[in-house]
Amino acid sequence: MTGLFVTLEGGDGVGKSTHARRIEAWMRDRGIETVRTREPGGTELGAEIRQIVLHHRGHIDSRAEALLYAADRAHHVATVVRPALERGACVIQDRYIDSSVAYQGAGRDLGSDDVRALSEWATRELTPHLTVLLDLDVAEGRRRMLAGRSGLDRLEAETVAFHERVRHTFLGVAALEPERFLVVDASRPQDEVAARIAERLETLLAAQRGQTSEGHASS
Amino acid sequence: MTGLFVTLEGGDGVGKSTHARRIEAWMRDRGIETVRTREPGGTELGAEIRQIVLHHRGHIDSRAEALLYAADRAHHVATVVRPALERGACVIQDRYIDSSVAYQGAGRDLGSDDVRALSEWATRELTPHLTVLLDLDVAEGRRRMLAGRSGLDRLEAETVAFHERVRHTFLGVAALEPERFLVVDASRPQDEVAARIAERLETLLAAQRGQTSEGHASS
Repeated sequence: MTGLFVTLEGGDGVGKSTHARRIEAWMRDRGIETVRTREPGGTELGAEIRQIVLHHRGHIDSRAEALLYAADRAHHVATVVRPALERGACVIQDRYIDSSVAYQGAGRDLGSDDVRALSEWATRELTPHLTVLLDLDVAEGRRRMLAGRSGLDRLEAETVAFHERVRHTFLGVAALEPERFLVVDASRPQDEVAARIAERLETLLAAQRGQTSEGHASS
Repeated sequence: MTGLFVTLEGGDGVGKSTHARRIEAWMRDRGIETVRTREPGGTELGAEIRQIVLHHRGHIDSRAEALLYAADRAHHVATVVRPALERGACVIQDRYIDSSVAYQGAGRDLGSDDVRALSEWATRELTPHLTVLLDLDVAEGRRRMLAGRSGLDRLEAETVAFHERVRHTFLGVAALEPERFLVVDASRPQDEVAARIAERLETLLAAQRGQTSEGHASS
């Protein structure tokens, strides 16, 4: 697999969509094909699942919810992400396994290890080359998210304490995998955040070019 | 948990619904509360998932499908089956984990162990007290199923070879767990099949009464 798989993680209102678009533009400027996608809901099947998870009236069993997210992910990775990576594209994805671990595992007391194992089975262990964690104070994220919006979905409407637990789980996961993660202070000006991400992307591309030429040299 | 959890398994057209109704009547005659249910689709959430699994247009990734069935199961067991068993009812269920193993594991080459592990996680390892496997020649099952029907859903429309594999997986699973399974030749007259099931139910109830009085005696 020769493509580049970049995921964006963090709570609501931290700027994941904004920076996904900026990464996309940055890659295109360099002539690299990009696929921008998201979970849940990155496929037609996923959109149907997303409808269920976010808008079902009444309680959803916590394991059922975890399995629905994993189903969306399995289909999405098999039909969108892997084919794009296999043709050498850069896949830029809003939320992936770390969101499941943070929201379901820590947030809903399911057990992070179980949630991660489920996702790894679902994706046949597809790991991102880079995960950008946009870290922001929960109250500030909610202010940003609510600007110009009229309602909240089921997950957004959880308590501040829940979102605090989610934030700290993200930071904990990032600390365990410093190679994969870039943690950025999302309260900084947008251009500054984008510049830090771009710097890391440069390094990644350079490393990948190095590997490719080595691969060619030795074959 | 004091209730009785009875599942019915087997291919299409073997008579699972008929015998579920007969078990229900048999239990009610003995003053036992019954809950008759099915998978997929035994809850409102499950019905939404069933819509997706059976009627989605286009390919569904095999792991995604397995996860959707597991999600339905998790919600169904948590919100319907366990509460009923906890109040002492007899739950009579059309299809359960063995169907997943037979249809997804063997039928779709996913690996039976993975599919079973997924279901056991989803249900927090809830195992039936009795599983009735109605065994029937595939061609005969399809003849019965098509009588008076106009169309087939996605699973029903699979090839005869697929349904043969499913049948043999059911028989293999039953052979590994003779304590839990009652395998009945579903080509026999309906009353004869019902009598064999009733005989086994009598034994189960007697054993359960024995355990309960022992429990009382020692407490």
